Amino acid sequence: MNRFSDYSMHIEKVLRDLTYPGAPLAGLYEPIAYALEAGGKRLRPSLLLMTADAFGANAEAAENAAVGVEMFHNFTLLHDDVMDKSDLRRSRPTVHSKWDENTAILSGDTMLTLATQYVAKVSDSVLRPVLDTFNGMAIRVYEGQRLDMDFETKEQVTLNDYLRMISDKTGALIGGAAKIGALIGGASQKDAELMYQYGEALGLAFQIQDDWLDVFGDSNTFGKPIGGDINNNKKSFLLLTALEAGTPDAEALREAMKLAPGDSKVKIVTRLYERMNVSETCRSAIAQYSKQALKALKGTSLSEETREPFRALLDKLTGRKK
Amino acid sequence: MNRFSDYSMHIEKVLRDLTYPGAPLAGLYEPIAYALEAGGKRLRPSLLLMTADAFGANAEAAENAAVGVEMFHNFTLLHDDVMDKSDLRRSRPTVHSKWDENTAILSGDTMLTLATQYVAKVSDSVLRPVLDTFNGMAIRVYEGQRLDMDFETKEQVTLNDYLRMISDKTGALIGGAAKIGALIGGASQKDAELMYQYGEALGLAFQIQDDWLDVFGDSNTFGKPIGGDINNNKKSFLLLTALEAGTPDAEALREAMKLAPGDSKVKIVTRLYERMNVSETCRSAIAQYSKQALKALKGTSLSEETREPFRALLDKLTGRKK
Repeated sequence: MNRFSDYSMHIEKVLRDLTYPGAPLAGLYEPIAYALEAGGKRLRPSLLLMTADAFGANAEAAENAAVGVEMFHNFTLLHDDVMDKSDLRRSRPTVHSKWDENTAILSGDTMLTLATQYVAKVSDSVLRPVLDTFNGMAIRVYEGQRLDMDFETKEQVTLNDYLRMISDKTGALIGGAAKIGALIGGASQKDAELMYQYGEALGLAFQIQDDWLDVFGDSNTFGKPIGGDINNNKKSFLLLTALEAGTPDAEALREAMKLAPGDSKVKIVTRLYERMNVSETCRSAIAQYSKQALKALKGTSLSEETREPFRALLDKLTGRKK
Repeated sequence: MNRFSDYSMHIEKVLRDLTYPGAPLAGLYEPIAYALEAGGKRLRPSLLLMTADAFGANAEAAENAAVGVEMFHNFTLLHDDVMDKSDLRRSRPTVHSKWDENTAILSGDTMLTLATQYVAKVSDSVLRPVLDTFNGMAIRVYEGQRLDMDFETKEQVTLNDYLRMISDKTGALIGGAAKIGALIGGASQKDAELMYQYGEALGLAFQIQDDWLDVFGDSNTFGKPIGGDINNNKKSFLLLTALEAGTPDAEALREAMKLAPGDSKVKIVTRLYERMNVSETCRSAIAQYSKQALKALKGTSLSEETREPFRALLDKLTGRKK
């Protein structure tokens, strides 16, 4: 077994070496190459490779599926950016702002089919379960995105609604990547399912961490400006936790949401979060999901040594830096 | 063997009986049900069912794949309508005008994965070739759409460019439907390929016919206003044929393209098409592709009797009514 960062470096190279048709179809494929070269930590494909390796597949067998999963992830980002009208992603212009919306829609569609093609390169013996996992995971991602969109205008969103939404939108894809890796590695149905649970719980912990960083993080390491969620009244884990407290501070928070976006609003809401100890609630939720992920991991037939990089990954993704 | 209209009625009923998740996900699935209930002649799924039947599959085995192909077709219409900013389709508001653009994008994405799921319900023995055909066909459709988009702003588009574009955008999907049906019916690789060729040539004949109807059809039976292509200077089979003639009339046509949209422009261009005998060129191109389709059909191992409804379909789709 290697460390997560080894798989991450490997898939980065594989992605860099992909080639695409040129003229007259550059208008379709250039935006795809552009979207994929943006980098990031390559969490999903690296986890897929690491899981396949843990269950005994050689790297090559899992490589195409890893490309497929990363292609899928970037397809969702491309379309999400159109829907959110986001002009920047990882400090670069998004596809629809560099080209145009129609290009982002059509090249995104193409990425979804390319993703399916890459995933379908697995051997015949696992084609059906891998494909079913991939498609099922994709449906959960769309459902999560729909719920997220509906939350923007919905008056009453509970913490439970939110947890369902991020399970679908974030958890399913990370869980799916781990399960596909396990299936390619020849894992039993039970082990594959447990790896899905590991990935899904890791995804939830990671998302809550991300919500926390949006308020309390360092903008240099976080990669986007701090306070974006506060200014957008985004129904994040922090906001919903605080609102459900039902205390006078929660009422004050509800009032603060009516403020116009700006530094003052960010300061006031952050101060309320601090008074309400929301960080502590985040910490304990992250710990709970990490525990859940570890429990699933320990339930598998993997040796303690083989489980080690999965535990390290969990630490890495939830090790909050302030 | 039944007639095309029997398969068409059958798939219509199957599509009507599909069910979707309700609240809280109605916002994702209602637009999908709406898009699919719009009707039309159901060319692609009916052809798939007819081909599967011709090669000996029972109807049920092919039903899901037929749903998948129709779901895919309607997904492309949903996204095309967003890209073209079309407000009406088959006399009803399009999804993005009834709901909004983001809904059309996300529900469209969902339809593509649902389509793949339906197609993947085929038996294990044909899963890989069916899936490969489906994905390969999808890629050709996107490539065709990209070329079509590029043609709008491209100065020089040749008739050959145009034929490649409609082969991809229209031919591939109809060819793919026929091939998938053949594979499900247990056809040989050679027969499956010939059915693809049959469908692709039929698609080309059908598209040229459609271009012709846009100028010379009857708006009641055609389903949209006559002259739309002329007013948009759409690079149709008729326009490109006429421009390539290099005669004084072709020059006059180039001038007429600069006219503002309106009845007068439609009249002038139609008159030029008549003088240049463009209808005759359409007729002979349609005859050529029909012949090609029939040749492929005759090359298969199907009996003359089994081939009959495929020949009848060709007649039906290219039997021009003025």
